[in-house]
Amino acid sequence: MKRQFRKMHGLGNDFVIFDARDVPLEMDVATARALGDRRTGIGFDQLIVMEPSDTADLRMRIWNSDGSEVEACGNATRCVALIAGGHSRIETMAGILEGQAGDGEAEIDMGVPRFGWDEIPLAYPLDTATLPIGWEGLRDPAAVNVGNPHVIFFVDDAGSVELERLGPIIENDPLFPDRINVNIASLEDGAIRLRVWERGAGLTRACGTGACATAVAAIRRKLVADRVEVRLPGGALTISWTPGATIRMRGGATHVFTGEVDL
Amino acid sequence: MKRQFRKMHGLGNDFVIFDARDVPLEMDVATARALGDRRTGIGFDQLIVMEPSDTADLRMRIWNSDGSEVEACGNATRCVALIAGGHSRIETMAGILEGQAGDGEAEIDMGVPRFGWDEIPLAYPLDTATLPIGWEGLRDPAAVNVGNPHVIFFVDDAGSVELERLGPIIENDPLFPDRINVNIASLEDGAIRLRVWERGAGLTRACGTGACATAVAAIRRKLVADRVEVRLPGGALTISWTPGATIRMRGGATHVFTGEVDL
Repeated sequence: MKRQFRKMHGLGNDFVIFDARDVPLEMDVATARALGDRRTGIGFDQLIVMEPSDTADLRMRIWNSDGSEVEACGNATRCVALIAGGHSRIETMAGILEGQAGDGEAEIDMGVPRFGWDEIPLAYPLDTATLPIGWEGLRDPAAVNVGNPHVIFFVDDAGSVELERLGPIIENDPLFPDRINVNIASLEDGAIRLRVWERGAGLTRACGTGACATAVAAIRRKLVADRVEVRLPGGALTISWTPGATIRMRGGATHVFTGEVDL
Repeated sequence: MKRQFRKMHGLGNDFVIFDARDVPLEMDVATARALGDRRTGIGFDQLIVMEPSDTADLRMRIWNSDGSEVEACGNATRCVALIAGGHSRIETMAGILEGQAGDGEAEIDMGVPRFGWDEIPLAYPLDTATLPIGWEGLRDPAAVNVGNPHVIFFVDDAGSVELERLGPIIENDPLFPDRINVNIASLEDGAIRLRVWERGAGLTRACGTGACATAVAAIRRKLVADRVEVRLPGGALTISWTPGATIRMRGGATHVFTGEVDL
């Protein structure tokens, strides 16, 4: 069956988006993987299916290119908010997110961060503000769940960490029963410089939930103000958060092309 | 201006194809590069523009993802032949190629190979059947021009060569004023196993002209029969050639999706 799709990106984090609000679309691991091949398929960091929702304006489901389903993706949510237009309530596996679309930009209310060890989740109780653990030179990370699980390491120079090698080791550590996204952050003129190893996707140019989790961890440690620019390889996001409130993420969402594929 | 395109691949060597036979399309280095980015553009190994021809059924022009224009691409020619349908005469910078499209396959007459040192071209006269030169363990290659320039090394195990490191060194050697495509071949049950470093594109899953050049070099050295299967990482091609005749290449051409992009 022929299906239309949109190709979009948020800071170079790229998505294939199917709108299944009117005509249902069954997605499975094998199809997501086949579509995810950048040479023999369409190619994407994450595949998005927009569905009807009983509790919000629409629901979005998210798959990585390895076929695994993901709870949340901040960059993709901005793209979906841009398609929905104006103000929208978007149901995700991580809860309902509120979006406000503007001119090639969107601001998303990403909900409240969670800090309980069993909410990350960790395999056993530890203080998530500063986990007393380390991998080689990387030590004492914070852990935050912003719809999906993150650890955040603050280092002097985020660029000098061998994230391609250490990312998969930390991602698959038994401490994290649902695996984990790995954030490496350094401070830069009141802003945060960030690189992210995404669970199931590897190094990406920009991870929206990673930017949220890292900003929250930095604000919690009083390293930055409660509105902070997070600089990722693909571009910058502005994250606002005060303790007790929801996280707001603002940044670009770009349409690249539309397509039609046989599914 | 909105333009339709097709995404296709031949053995995993992938193409974005614009049909500009009716409505002209200006392509330039910056546009080709931008479209070639796999996250913020469409993504391809080669970009193809189909144009009207004064001397054949149509003309095809070819750009690499680095924005450089290429003379010939065998895998892309099979895809263009499939779009043209039936029997077609396709003008390229490397001459007119005859195509015959079948069911998801095409056979292309790739013209006659050229062996003159100034036809490769080399910087100075050498015997192209066996160039008396070497790079580390790679020695005594053949050189063949099949519309674009190739060197071919026959080794015991094509898989064991560090082509990612040696490819760019050989590609840019001053011996090759137009640079060169680097083929590493080994014999396997009467067939050829082949890996190719493509000039301007790097390691690809399958290089059609590389398969032609390598089969011709192997037939010339009497290493294989005059109809030989060439096994590339992306799949197999069947190459036929006898001295004095044209090269015929048969293999798959696969439609993946259609799209529309603002140019």
